[in-house]
Amino acid sequence: MRAVAVVGLGKTPFGAFPDRDLRSLAVEAGRKCLSNAQAAPEAIESFYLGNFAGPSFVGQNHLAPYVSTALGIRGVPATRIEAACASSGSAFYHAWTEVAAGIHDLVMVVGVEKMTSQTTARVSEILAAAGDCSGEMKAGNTFASLFAMIARRHMHDFGTRKEHLAAVAVKNHANGALNPDAHMRKPITMEQALAGKPIADPLNLYDCSLISDGAAAVILAPLERAAEFTAKPVRILSVAQASDYVALDQKDDITTFPAVRKAAEAAYRMAGVTAGDIQFAELHDCFTIAEIIASEDLGFVPRGQGGPYALEGCSARDGQRPINTSGGLKAKGHPVGATGVAQICDVALQIRCEAGARQIPRHSLGLAQNLGGSGATCVVTILAEP
Amino acid sequence: MRAVAVVGLGKTPFGAFPDRDLRSLAVEAGRKCLSNAQAAPEAIESFYLGNFAGPSFVGQNHLAPYVSTALGIRGVPATRIEAACASSGSAFYHAWTEVAAGIHDLVMVVGVEKMTSQTTARVSEILAAAGDCSGEMKAGNTFASLFAMIARRHMHDFGTRKEHLAAVAVKNHANGALNPDAHMRKPITMEQALAGKPIADPLNLYDCSLISDGAAAVILAPLERAAEFTAKPVRILSVAQASDYVALDQKDDITTFPAVRKAAEAAYRMAGVTAGDIQFAELHDCFTIAEIIASEDLGFVPRGQGGPYALEGCSARDGQRPINTSGGLKAKGHPVGATGVAQICDVALQIRCEAGARQIPRHSLGLAQNLGGSGATCVVTILAEP
Repeated sequence: MRAVAVVGLGKTPFGAFPDRDLRSLAVEAGRKCLSNAQAAPEAIESFYLGNFAGPSFVGQNHLAPYVSTALGIRGVPATRIEAACASSGSAFYHAWTEVAAGIHDLVMVVGVEKMTSQTTARVSEILAAAGDCSGEMKAGNTFASLFAMIARRHMHDFGTRKEHLAAVAVKNHANGALNPDAHMRKPITMEQALAGKPIADPLNLYDCSLISDGAAAVILAPLERAAEFTAKPVRILSVAQASDYVALDQKDDITTFPAVRKAAEAAYRMAGVTAGDIQFAELHDCFTIAEIIASEDLGFVPRGQGGPYALEGCSARDGQRPINTSGGLKAKGHPVGATGVAQICDVALQIRCEAGARQIPRHSLGLAQNLGGSGATCVVTILAEP
Repeated sequence: MRAVAVVGLGKTPFGAFPDRDLRSLAVEAGRKCLSNAQAAPEAIESFYLGNFAGPSFVGQNHLAPYVSTALGIRGVPATRIEAACASSGSAFYHAWTEVAAGIHDLVMVVGVEKMTSQTTARVSEILAAAGDCSGEMKAGNTFASLFAMIARRHMHDFGTRKEHLAAVAVKNHANGALNPDAHMRKPITMEQALAGKPIADPLNLYDCSLISDGAAAVILAPLERAAEFTAKPVRILSVAQASDYVALDQKDDITTFPAVRKAAEAAYRMAGVTAGDIQFAELHDCFTIAEIIASEDLGFVPRGQGGPYALEGCSARDGQRPINTSGGLKAKGHPVGATGVAQICDVALQIRCEAGARQIPRHSLGLAQNLGGSGATCVVTILAEP
């Protein structure tokens, strides 16, 4: 396996953009990325699109060539991968395998979702299709209610409190306020976070990530060729994908995600690092409880300690191990298919010292964790200075 | 790159099965395949699902872990690939790259689609999302009307006649009649084929493939390990995927598909064979004109000669180079996401001498061609005796 680097990245702002369609967002991110890597579209040897539900959100399917040809990339394999909210994390995994295995040199991954043209009720319905529709969703669940059950059980088993959830929201809003590309740039107080409109108790409005439009793109190349494209390559130490049951009721324990543990274990092993070595991370905070559980499943803290870890400031920008300096899905926004690649971009920006006002001092080894559904897919990526 | 073999295969019958859901079809094909390869689900190291539009047809997304866990495959990467009608051909391509590159040994690919629970009008709408919805589909096109334009232009440029189209239908119905798993097992005469109900002139009912439910599965392994799983491995000489514009109006010439030519060229080169060496093939006859053009783009015949080739019986079971001995999409059926893997299964069955009443005498080197949309994706696979 060859060493692989991210040699270019590009993102759109995340937000609600009534005048933009899916393709224009994907093309904007893709062009910025090509420019960032000083690469011509004709140089791309394989193209991946991560997208969750374009057919349902905007009525367009067969999205990989639909986007790639608009970028001037024609002829080469163009593949769309769908893995719920981990769609572009999975696309990144497959792009990495191609380059690592020596099948292609220059591979592009774009993640995109255009969600805000639908009503919130319809968005909930489309998102619910990432869960078990024949069982839990038919019974009336949404993702908010599933994660509410997860949160309640975490509270029961470990003494997690609403203040712990709120601490994640306050931190991520503070970070998002410093991110010019974030959907929500509004700091909130602990009091505000605790007083949010109820969504699915114990989760309130501030515990839920945003419904957003947006796109993100990266280009991968063999590390030994990285200098042709950038002065700031970011080395991919490892990428691992794992899977698990789609339905919560099939799991023995809903306060931990085996797919996250498996992907993390594989990623740590391949990278030759331990959880303790990770300096900062972008975690999949689709709900505040998800960040708390991710910090436990990744081994950053013992089980049940994710809440106190956030409340004590350990995951703040000036804490022991900053989490979601981008604002996370909570404040940066969560255009589902874009999220995995956007996380990679945000980790890479820190490593490249290009994170602006949210730059952290220890930024040479970072991790991105992208979750699909209520834990049925997970992709963990570890990035480092070359 | 390592030599790779198909070491197991399994299919459901294709048809309209009101009592079966998507997952039960996928699981049936998957279990038959595991049994055929004498493999336990725990032995599968990576799982791919080819599916075009499960979210639209049956309301379920995040389909890879939804299916894999039902097969007892848990933990490993489970990836859904969508590439319109080439979804499972593309999934097969990616599975092959993983094994060829040495990333995994035992990889399973399932293709599935459940279409018949929707009305024909809704099916047309869902299929149309594989074309350019913002342009050609908004203007009122369906896939039948796009391929009708292609057929009319082919008639104009090359003198192709309705009899040529009908000859493809008659041949594929004759083959399908011998296939116990085919959706349509009814031979038709040239007169019947020419007198079909008009769909989009010059295409009539008998020029169009079927709306079907069904699933197909294969397991890939390094050739050197094939004997652990089967006494009849089928060697994968090459797989190639290529892409092109989604919208017909972006193409210079609508009577040829550059993605098919590119994929074929790459597949021939990698396999070290020429078009003339291919003894038989499963081609993507979503419409009769598509088989005619595929036979030209693959280099079986010069441009414009695909129609006469079929009419003269060269592609019949007892002809020079049999095409679609399974009955093709036309008679076997076309559960979109299952088609690519089903083609691989049908080529493999001929090579393994397991094609029953439709077995052909020269069966050591076969090709499968899987097309997405009106040519925006193509996957070409060349299979041979080991």
